[in-house]
Amino acid sequence: MSDLPKFVHIAEEGPREGFQIEKGPIPTEGKVRLIDALSETGLKHIQICSFVNPKRVPGMADAEAVARGIKINPEVEYTALWFNERGLEQAMAVGHLSVDCKITLYASEHFLISNLNRDRAQHLDKLRDLVKFCIDKKVPINRAGINAAFGCNFEGDVSVESLIATVDDTMALANEFNLDIEAFSLADSMAWATPDSIKRGVGAVKDKYPDMPILLHLHNTRGMGIANAYAGLEMGVDRFDSSIAGLGGCPFAKHQGAAGNVATEDLAFMCGEMGIETGLDLDALIEASQIATEVVAHDTPACIAKGGSLNAIRQRLKQAAE
Amino acid sequence: MSDLPKFVHIAEEGPREGFQIEKGPIPTEGKVRLIDALSETGLKHIQICSFVNPKRVPGMADAEAVARGIKINPEVEYTALWFNERGLEQAMAVGHLSVDCKITLYASEHFLISNLNRDRAQHLDKLRDLVKFCIDKKVPINRAGINAAFGCNFEGDVSVESLIATVDDTMALANEFNLDIEAFSLADSMAWATPDSIKRGVGAVKDKYPDMPILLHLHNTRGMGIANAYAGLEMGVDRFDSSIAGLGGCPFAKHQGAAGNVATEDLAFMCGEMGIETGLDLDALIEASQIATEVVAHDTPACIAKGGSLNAIRQRLKQAAE
Repeated sequence: MSDLPKFVHIAEEGPREGFQIEKGPIPTEGKVRLIDALSETGLKHIQICSFVNPKRVPGMADAEAVARGIKINPEVEYTALWFNERGLEQAMAVGHLSVDCKITLYASEHFLISNLNRDRAQHLDKLRDLVKFCIDKKVPINRAGINAAFGCNFEGDVSVESLIATVDDTMALANEFNLDIEAFSLADSMAWATPDSIKRGVGAVKDKYPDMPILLHLHNTRGMGIANAYAGLEMGVDRFDSSIAGLGGCPFAKHQGAAGNVATEDLAFMCGEMGIETGLDLDALIEASQIATEVVAHDTPACIAKGGSLNAIRQRLKQAAE
Repeated sequence: MSDLPKFVHIAEEGPREGFQIEKGPIPTEGKVRLIDALSETGLKHIQICSFVNPKRVPGMADAEAVARGIKINPEVEYTALWFNERGLEQAMAVGHLSVDCKITLYASEHFLISNLNRDRAQHLDKLRDLVKFCIDKKVPINRAGINAAFGCNFEGDVSVESLIATVDDTMALANEFNLDIEAFSLADSMAWATPDSIKRGVGAVKDKYPDMPILLHLHNTRGMGIANAYAGLEMGVDRFDSSIAGLGGCPFAKHQGAAGNVATEDLAFMCGEMGIETGLDLDALIEASQIATEVVAHDTPACIAKGGSLNAIRQRLKQAAE
């Protein structure tokens, strides 16, 4: 379809989103092995760990060892997640991590209160402190985003009006400090979105902020991940987060069972088959997906790694015809 | 979105598509238990078994016992799959199965040759014999369809031109016998479709046969099932086949790993959340999905049954607020 983007940027979050939720423990060398495999797939951005309180997220206790253990591909930007000054300092101390700051608001105030123990106003104050700290440390602040942008297990449905009000608050904060936001992410953190709500939400944000590039971070807990990504593509969205093998989820989101992010290889497959370039090597992603499944030592919800690529079949048929 | 259909008909194929591919053996009483649960979900059409050669499809050797064992809900039309006169006669002998005939062509001639050992012309001749037999037996012939409509593991990509040529052949056969085709199904039997190819294929068929209701039969082997269904909805498609818990696949399609049809409960969930009526009770479908998983005795790819419905969360939040 002619209005789909020509190129889509896919940023990998599997090692961070995935390993934070695993009951584990996952051996550090397994994590490093997966990240090294991902580094050879054409991905330009890989989020490899989070510097968070190991008491709250035990799976990330080895974050520094992982960050120091990987083989650096100079083509790849390696990032880490962090939420406060302490986490930022740990990430900076590693040396080869690409450190920038993202300001994140929550469309759901209930989620904020339940998980971070603060309301919107208090959260904005905390973000102001963080922004000042980053400016002081010369850490670029060029990303912003909304979590639970389409619905929340603690609050319920998030209306388009509420989403826009949260985007407005985020942009006001960015303007307060003259920040140049390069990408604005909308995260369906708890898998409430449908293709229809993706279109309404993205459409409303684009109407109000037409020049702002939007990124979608989608979860597949209810099986809508790829359909939601497609709805995003139809709205011109050309940036996505995803997780190899569909690893991941949100450890605080009260989900039992097979949560998981939209799978990198499934998203790359859909784009590739629809003529959208991603710069990714699907065969290498399938290999990385198989490594991810080995490393977590349980079945994963990835489809392409099990169903196989179509190019592999095309190749076989071509050889048989020769 | 205003151009989505207001009501979608979902026909259940899990007991047939699912159990034909299971390594099994699945006990007959398990099959009956699942069908009885499906009968209480609001589904109006359930395909419960196939009358085929038990040497080729051992999982269907107990087809008659299943058909005779179920508790009939008079609101539900129970159907069986069959390919030849012998199968049709077995289905008719049961007495309470709704027996009609569907004429099915294959967009891929390679698939036809590999699996049914005949070419297109020979297949059309076989269908003529079948149609004559049905007319003679007063069996209505009101459905038609194309298998491997979007691509084939034996032939590769199926072009829109080739799809339309196959639809033309099917319609010519229908016209030859003055058949009144009520629904025309396009089956992505081997999971080659993407939302883009669904739109191109369905669009081309609708352009040429604007009054013909189209049904989509989608497989989720490569994770595109729900996205493809959404693309179909966007094209105005309001009839789908699906399988509870995502059971199923094609036993002849050379697929290893997690094949499977688009899951009934995931499709019903998407429709419901987008304001499209299906007449289905999602909670009852989730229960049936859990029974399906017990009956096949392995994990299934269904998402909603694991992730939970949103209405359950909305209900909980409402109660907590009171």
